[in-house]
Amino acid sequence: MNNFTFYNPTRIHFGVGQIEKIKSEIPANARVLVIYGGGSIKSNGVYEQVSSTLAEYKWFEFSGIEPNPLYDTAMKALDVIKHHNIDYLLAVGGGSVIDATKFIAAAALFVEENHNNDPWDILTQQLKIKAALPFGTVLTLPATGSESNSGSVMTRDDNKLFFGSVHTYPQFSILDPQTTLSLSNRQISNGVIDAFVHTVEQYLTYPVNAKIQDRFAEGILQTLIEEGSCVLNDQNNLEIRANIMWSATMALNGLIGVGVPQDWATHMIGHELTALHGIDHARTLSIVFPAVMKIKRKQKREKLIQYGQRVWNLCGTDDEIINQAIDKTVEFFQTMQVPTSLSDVNLGASDIDAILAKLKQHQMIALGEHRDIDLVVSREILEKAL
Amino acid sequence: MNNFTFYNPTRIHFGVGQIEKIKSEIPANARVLVIYGGGSIKSNGVYEQVSSTLAEYKWFEFSGIEPNPLYDTAMKALDVIKHHNIDYLLAVGGGSVIDATKFIAAAALFVEENHNNDPWDILTQQLKIKAALPFGTVLTLPATGSESNSGSVMTRDDNKLFFGSVHTYPQFSILDPQTTLSLSNRQISNGVIDAFVHTVEQYLTYPVNAKIQDRFAEGILQTLIEEGSCVLNDQNNLEIRANIMWSATMALNGLIGVGVPQDWATHMIGHELTALHGIDHARTLSIVFPAVMKIKRKQKREKLIQYGQRVWNLCGTDDEIINQAIDKTVEFFQTMQVPTSLSDVNLGASDIDAILAKLKQHQMIALGEHRDIDLVVSREILEKAL
Repeated sequence: MNNFTFYNPTRIHFGVGQIEKIKSEIPANARVLVIYGGGSIKSNGVYEQVSSTLAEYKWFEFSGIEPNPLYDTAMKALDVIKHHNIDYLLAVGGGSVIDATKFIAAAALFVEENHNNDPWDILTQQLKIKAALPFGTVLTLPATGSESNSGSVMTRDDNKLFFGSVHTYPQFSILDPQTTLSLSNRQISNGVIDAFVHTVEQYLTYPVNAKIQDRFAEGILQTLIEEGSCVLNDQNNLEIRANIMWSATMALNGLIGVGVPQDWATHMIGHELTALHGIDHARTLSIVFPAVMKIKRKQKREKLIQYGQRVWNLCGTDDEIINQAIDKTVEFFQTMQVPTSLSDVNLGASDIDAILAKLKQHQMIALGEHRDIDLVVSREILEKAL
Repeated sequence: MNNFTFYNPTRIHFGVGQIEKIKSEIPANARVLVIYGGGSIKSNGVYEQVSSTLAEYKWFEFSGIEPNPLYDTAMKALDVIKHHNIDYLLAVGGGSVIDATKFIAAAALFVEENHNNDPWDILTQQLKIKAALPFGTVLTLPATGSESNSGSVMTRDDNKLFFGSVHTYPQFSILDPQTTLSLSNRQISNGVIDAFVHTVEQYLTYPVNAKIQDRFAEGILQTLIEEGSCVLNDQNNLEIRANIMWSATMALNGLIGVGVPQDWATHMIGHELTALHGIDHARTLSIVFPAVMKIKRKQKREKLIQYGQRVWNLCGTDDEIINQAIDKTVEFFQTMQVPTSLSDVNLGASDIDAILAKLKQHQMIALGEHRDIDLVVSREILEKAL
């Protein structure tokens, strides 16, 4: 395996009833800003649990974080932070709320450091921020892994920009699977697919004899397949929700990605589909990933065989195993009721040029674990995904 | 799965050449005490690498930490710390050196807090310490996982006592697999067995539908079996060493043990064998664990079947799978050239009473995941291990 550094200081409180652990995490004299999205936490009881836990704190709230969180919305939170002298943030929601909170935490201190500082530079210039407000999270939608990593994706116009810092790990994250019972089928499906593709982006590349990372990735994939195949028909099963929730965290807390090559082409191409056509992030992944497997079949050959054998228990010739592994993946995605082709979302060959133009604009011209997915190969992938 | 809290803030630098990362971890103005064992680090080049990396620091050294580190030796380090005004510790060695360093780090500040404080109380009264000196580790013997957890086992006379605190996680640990190439076959075997039994202590209990933890544990076991079976005949293979090293860390960094029942009876009985007869820790485990599987076959039935099917790819009736799983485990231990019975270390039925007396003295009278291994059952286990 390759050399690596692994560090993840986020404290996880997992299980039903863990929301009350907020009190052991946030200092009693903190001035807390609770950040959330569109209000689903008000209908599913999470808002109530959080506010009763915060009863003895000075706390305020900021809502309206969008899916694919907008830079401009995050910037509005900075005024609230300044006005109320906030010194601790609490994200309550899914990956979008947590991503936005990370950016807000960093931007608040960046502006405080120097009033001429423009937080937009954090995203566009990949600035190394020096500090961020401390924050915790209450996760209600298992998918992105943002509750246990330092990364964030923010959107402005049709740009999706990544940022991350050693200062933007959550201090703590509460993972109560009960909070996920009120999710729609679409949300839970999207979460399973997002976690699945996070895992294969770090696994389905080329072998470097990293046996632990491979086995852990395979374990996550097997769990997502087992639980994902049941969850839509067994909607009140808390054990399934718990396993999906922990899988999604493990898929992107850094552990399976250390010391191994990583791909991420599916994500980069998928981001443009979201930006141009508003397709849910996970659904862009389920459209693009099967095509990536097919087009990069030769370069991913050894890992595709290992994936077929270990994750899907396939046997036969190498080529039979690869064919079946790809087919099984698509079937699983279909079981999860997500689109697996561009035509499934009413896009066609005539839409490809615009996607490629966006990839070019964002300099996404050397993707994949070999950095060999240029615009020509991206076109092949998109054509295969028709 | 059960509710849990997971927290592990240790930064891992993994790979050949990572020792130089010490400089990015220890503050430039720190006064460092390098703690090591019997001098093997002087013959294998690690001492030289560490001292050249520390060239610009004020640093001192304390050697002579024993395998099964002695309380009295650790206490001598406190004088050195006081005399030289040490404020950072660096453990260089295996689990014993790291365990001792944790205790020294805690004891130093415990005594500083109040000169009447007796560090022995930390161990005997399970005191909650309030602080510890910061420390890092350079691991040279993959086995105990101490490089990535907060626990420590110290020995005084024939007592082995455990302590751990949120303050005794290493700040960082350097895992360079090259440092393990000079280990003897016996040391590397012991390490593989130690990591293997750490894993089964957290896995081979009863099912709670914790799919990620189970799959991760199975992945560690499979890796240890694959690499363990080769390492003694392929002694210069750095990739094998790397996989063993990362397996041993993963086996006891807390991850596979969250939210699941844990056993640890093998360890508790094994500790008495070490204390009474000086048998290497890992070799007590390879003697006791097969007997634990046999005696607790009924209570561990479901997990034994899962272990047989998933780790050893066995098929047949449930009982055939269990029989073969136990046999395969013993065969693997024998491949690793460790004893698998008391007679292998020249102990017999007449030695059992003394072991039971020690278990009684140490109140080890309700062991295992069901707390149902009393002295009667421990006798059965020891008789089965004859």
